[in-house]
Amino acid sequence: MAALDPDKTYKAAVIGAGSGGLTLAIGLAGFGHEVALIEGRDVGGDCTNVGCVPSKALLHAARSGRDDPFGWTQSRRNDLRDQETSEMAEHEQITLVHGWARLTGDRDPHVVAVDMPDGSVSSIRAEHVVICAGSSPVRFEIDGLPEERLLTNEELFELEAAPRSALFVGGGPISLEMATAFADLGSRTAIVELQDRILPSEDLAISETLTAALTARGIEVHTGTTVERFDVATDTAELSNGTQIGDVELVVLAVGRAPKLERLDLEAAGVEVAPQGIVADDWGRTNVDRIWAVGDVTGNTLTTHGANAIGRRTVQAIALPKLPRVGSPRAMPSAIYSRPEVASVGLSLADIERIPRASRRRYSVDLTDLDRGYTDELDHGIVVVDVERFTGAILRAAIVGPAATELIGIFTMAIDHGIGLRKMFGTIHPYPAYAQAVGKLADEFSRDTLPVLHREFVAMARGRIAVALAGVGVRARRPRTPTCPRLSRGSC
Amino acid sequence: MAALDPDKTYKAAVIGAGSGGLTLAIGLAGFGHEVALIEGRDVGGDCTNVGCVPSKALLHAARSGRDDPFGWTQSRRNDLRDQETSEMAEHEQITLVHGWARLTGDRDPHVVAVDMPDGSVSSIRAEHVVICAGSSPVRFEIDGLPEERLLTNEELFELEAAPRSALFVGGGPISLEMATAFADLGSRTAIVELQDRILPSEDLAISETLTAALTARGIEVHTGTTVERFDVATDTAELSNGTQIGDVELVVLAVGRAPKLERLDLEAAGVEVAPQGIVADDWGRTNVDRIWAVGDVTGNTLTTHGANAIGRRTVQAIALPKLPRVGSPRAMPSAIYSRPEVASVGLSLADIERIPRASRRRYSVDLTDLDRGYTDELDHGIVVVDVERFTGAILRAAIVGPAATELIGIFTMAIDHGIGLRKMFGTIHPYPAYAQAVGKLADEFSRDTLPVLHREFVAMARGRIAVALAGVGVRARRPRTPTCPRLSRGSC
Repeated sequence: MAALDPDKTYKAAVIGAGSGGLTLAIGLAGFGHEVALIEGRDVGGDCTNVGCVPSKALLHAARSGRDDPFGWTQSRRNDLRDQETSEMAEHEQITLVHGWARLTGDRDPHVVAVDMPDGSVSSIRAEHVVICAGSSPVRFEIDGLPEERLLTNEELFELEAAPRSALFVGGGPISLEMATAFADLGSRTAIVELQDRILPSEDLAISETLTAALTARGIEVHTGTTVERFDVATDTAELSNGTQIGDVELVVLAVGRAPKLERLDLEAAGVEVAPQGIVADDWGRTNVDRIWAVGDVTGNTLTTHGANAIGRRTVQAIALPKLPRVGSPRAMPSAIYSRPEVASVGLSLADIERIPRASRRRYSVDLTDLDRGYTDELDHGIVVVDVERFTGAILRAAIVGPAATELIGIFTMAIDHGIGLRKMFGTIHPYPAYAQAVGKLADEFSRDTLPVLHREFVAMARGRIAVALAGVGVRARRPRTPTCPRLSRGSC
Repeated sequence: MAALDPDKTYKAAVIGAGSGGLTLAIGLAGFGHEVALIEGRDVGGDCTNVGCVPSKALLHAARSGRDDPFGWTQSRRNDLRDQETSEMAEHEQITLVHGWARLTGDRDPHVVAVDMPDGSVSSIRAEHVVICAGSSPVRFEIDGLPEERLLTNEELFELEAAPRSALFVGGGPISLEMATAFADLGSRTAIVELQDRILPSEDLAISETLTAALTARGIEVHTGTTVERFDVATDTAELSNGTQIGDVELVVLAVGRAPKLERLDLEAAGVEVAPQGIVADDWGRTNVDRIWAVGDVTGNTLTTHGANAIGRRTVQAIALPKLPRVGSPRAMPSAIYSRPEVASVGLSLADIERIPRASRRRYSVDLTDLDRGYTDELDHGIVVVDVERFTGAILRAAIVGPAATELIGIFTMAIDHGIGLRKMFGTIHPYPAYAQAVGKLADEFSRDTLPVLHREFVAMARGRIAVALAGVGVRARRPRTPTCPRLSRGSC
């Protein structure tokens, strides 16, 4: 355990002890550096406290029929938080500071001011400042709905029991996962999404398959509308399209995330900010020398594995500054642990649209057509891929179905290593695993393209030239972090 | 629907309509060839009728608490069989012949005699004969046990209900899957394995983790022993180690497979046979020109996906004889759909032992240490890999845990495409998926090897030279079909 030393210049002051901040602190400490890790709330950040960990625990508790699912989820979450907290508090090279950090104008070394819980202000000097302040749920009021009946992920896991009924506003990961859990716990559940389909950043077939699966499980899905007002006398939510949803006990707001910037005093240090968050590159670099930003606070990724991946690069950039900083992060999958699960990886649909249509192909496999789907009575499941012609390079892959969040790894590997459907032809997957869908895609691609390889090659070459000339920055084999809309970019 | 034409010379006479035979018939018909498909029992072979399909259906029915799990499994199986039968019967280029085929001495074209159910003999002339006759369960009597209480996979699925208790002889895939299903259905279950652990062809850690998981679910596991006799008065099985297992209603024999050779009259055609089955190479070639053998009847693979993979190569060799026949089949995974699932891919442990110990490394990740294991209360799960030094090329990977049969696809891809742990470093898997184990393996490998790359390179080079000099035919990057003992090579 290291106490805060006002005279010391730390290698880094890391603001926020969530997924990004822990990656930075542990990573830099692993290189022998001393780190001040500043957290105003709980170690573990959203992931451990109000995100991935309690949501997956609640999903498990609900599915497995546990008694007291919320109590169990809370104790599971608290145990992990306590463990992470003591690991940080006891780490020899990490000084854990409980308080709210803000930047100052001092740059050499950087000075971070910390507003302590007792009202005092501490000062931390560090060569580098890494901002991993995270994000908050976007909040708004609903006319007529009492405040205590409007929850976000920050309040949801403090419930004592599942409500009689819950209405989820927003058709993204949090709603999909929590509607799954609540439905398993016996709540009547409905999802209301403003856009014309849930998961609008995914392929239409993905949204449709998921909607059908949720609907079959009794989860109502209302799209192209939003909650206009709430009548507390009848517990009725009125949607903008005129639909009335009665007997609503709780409303869960999950309509997006906003970066937590308000306490940071970014202006004092001159750090550039855009609407989605702090402007930072693939290595976490901001416009200010030796100030970095990682994770939700940048809006570049909104997932734990995303913050971890960029955070590892930032560790490398700080600890090994002479190594050349080349290359983008590898393909960044998204995952939603609803039932069925949803996962995707690769270019955003918008980026794919920028590639000439004539130089790409789209394939899909209905998982209910596989023998495993047959033996397991699967009602809904699909794999959709967009691929380059000739090579079959995976531009994007998306899956709705059992173990989607594990299966996506096959496509992530394929993108990272430039393995197109042509090269995947013949790869053997076990019978009757759902992974056989990958073999089917490769078979279909080969059947379509082998007889006309010459034409395929020309189409591919034309597409690459068009992309290069347009300078849209689309790379077929190793896509950038997808630029999906904020609402739907991976869970947690 | 094509009727048998005694004057026609078919492109191929395919003996057996299981996984291998259907692959051949459909594949060759797809090239426009006429095929006679001869089956003495049911279309679909073991897989559809007494193997993969009913076993996976029963596992699903048991897990999901279906009423009448056996009746449902039977009807599911029958529906698929009927569908496959009518597809074959109605196929324009396939003539489905119900009877038992045997070879004759006539070679140009080959003549196959078919013993028809009415006692007559038909004769089929074909350029090629492909033997896909499959395998049968090894049977023996147990002293004192009435015949009707000793089942194999051929009788098991005809039960009307799960027995009060069942004893499984043999610790391979069939026992593991069916013990899982029966335990879910409320049977008391025990497995008796002659060798010192279940799944003896897998890594010790795999056997141990699986044993612990099964035992925790109440499935008794007895190893290093076998059933000596049965006392029908007390329903007690006596094991050779003195253990007595009381109140046993049924005994299921699953101790291995024997190729179905007895009706084929291989001598008449001079086809070479070894103890494990017909001698055939990676393309299905036997010692006799234009006689081929695929699947269980060769003993080279004992899985549906194995027969399919080799069968596709045989189709290519017959339909496109001028294409060069180079290369082995791709990495052949094995999969067991027990709970937890088990899957592996790569070299056999015996082949790995032939690679100098100093040129390889072994890594493992305990899946219960992953955050997903934590949120899902996973008690038992592990990934074990053997890799080459320096490159981290996957020699073998094995998994016990949730979705193991899907996750193995990541390692299968890695082997097929020569992606070692060094190249996998940095690949991003979703949080908190079990696939994060792959990232942990790559991290650990990099941490161990990056500081000593020079030493790693020398160790790798020495290993490759030693393997080349010994001529053991072990290839680090694209292993041959594993040469595991017969009993444990993948399920179904």
